[in-house]
Amino acid sequence: MQEATNRSQAGGAGDMGKGEQTRQEIIRKAAPIFNQRGYEGASLSDLMKATGLKKGGIYRHFSSKEQLAAEAFDFAWQEAWSARTRGLESVTNSVDRLQQLVVNFVKRRGVVPGGCPLLNTAVDSDDGSFVLRQRVRKAFAGWSNQVMTTIRTGIRKREVRPGIDARKVATVMIATLEGAIMLSRLEKTDHALRAAQEYLDAYLEKEVRLQR
Amino acid sequence: MQEATNRSQAGGAGDMGKGEQTRQEIIRKAAPIFNQRGYEGASLSDLMKATGLKKGGIYRHFSSKEQLAAEAFDFAWQEAWSARTRGLESVTNSVDRLQQLVVNFVKRRGVVPGGCPLLNTAVDSDDGSFVLRQRVRKAFAGWSNQVMTTIRTGIRKREVRPGIDARKVATVMIATLEGAIMLSRLEKTDHALRAAQEYLDAYLEKEVRLQR
Repeated sequence: MQEATNRSQAGGAGDMGKGEQTRQEIIRKAAPIFNQRGYEGASLSDLMKATGLKKGGIYRHFSSKEQLAAEAFDFAWQEAWSARTRGLESVTNSVDRLQQLVVNFVKRRGVVPGGCPLLNTAVDSDDGSFVLRQRVRKAFAGWSNQVMTTIRTGIRKREVRPGIDARKVATVMIATLEGAIMLSRLEKTDHALRAAQEYLDAYLEKEVRLQR
Repeated sequence: MQEATNRSQAGGAGDMGKGEQTRQEIIRKAAPIFNQRGYEGASLSDLMKATGLKKGGIYRHFSSKEQLAAEAFDFAWQEAWSARTRGLESVTNSVDRLQQLVVNFVKRRGVVPGGCPLLNTAVDSDDGSFVLRQRVRKAFAGWSNQVMTTIRTGIRKREVRPGIDARKVATVMIATLEGAIMLSRLEKTDHALRAAQEYLDAYLEKEVRLQR
């Protein structure tokens, strides 16, 4: 009954029961820990310190560290994705939209401390957690599909060259940006990200845009 | 005297004292553990199992886990680098040589289990060990310099366009390959690496090679 009453309240946290609120709060606070330190590196004491809860207070809400890490990844990815795609729908030309996505990726960083959750969690889970890897695969598939859909729409609208392999363009864009964020974080400068942006911008202009 | 005697023997392990042999053996066996599981994930019991030594037998040779991880990274990178550059000097044209470097990166994998040590250790150390990050920076600088030198030689030999920004080309090549290896390991297919290869090959052909 308590839960039903809470759900009937309008807006915000009032929509969830207290247990669900606590659960979401744990996920939100655990996300930067996992993103910065990795799955193995995120210790129970780190998680307790970040959440202000004891072990029992955390694990009442999650069946395992892996489950918490998986939800923390989904949260971190959602935050990064929202930042990168915000406002994109107002860019009507498909190639301009892809170029803006590149700009957003380069400019809108640090939403969740520790760098891109996709890169971090992919590298972390490639010889590790299958559960985590599945979440990252889903995130990559979503991003890749968004780029492919933009390209296919662009072909129909005669903005993109008809012969383009949409999957290949999506893969190369994502690989270049993720590799560049790795190098930028290694060097602690923006050089690699700026180089990748300039290069992808020219590539989209010369090889992807339909020349009239 | 023992060490001097050993050093005077010709070839192989005979060149080192027994302590140094053991030390090298530990590094060689620890490298895949660190490369697959990361710095935090590589537990003492993993390292003991891989080396067949007890804690004291390992740490007699290294001042800390960080020092062992740093030496393991250097070893792993050296192995990867040797595989990727083997035979390159016989390719005389500078652009052909860069294209061959890309092919080697895509084809010669798995030298040290766990994927590219540069990618893994960069992502692992970006919010972590400064010592490790310095080693990765050195590895990246070496790779980047090799590409830049090839490009500058190519400009002198009139094989590469004179206006090319060598540092930018090196950064984009490395970013694209490292991002692609991350995606290939995520998907457990070669798609991303093949896409990156095709794309870099065309880029080097169209944008870097001097057209006559």
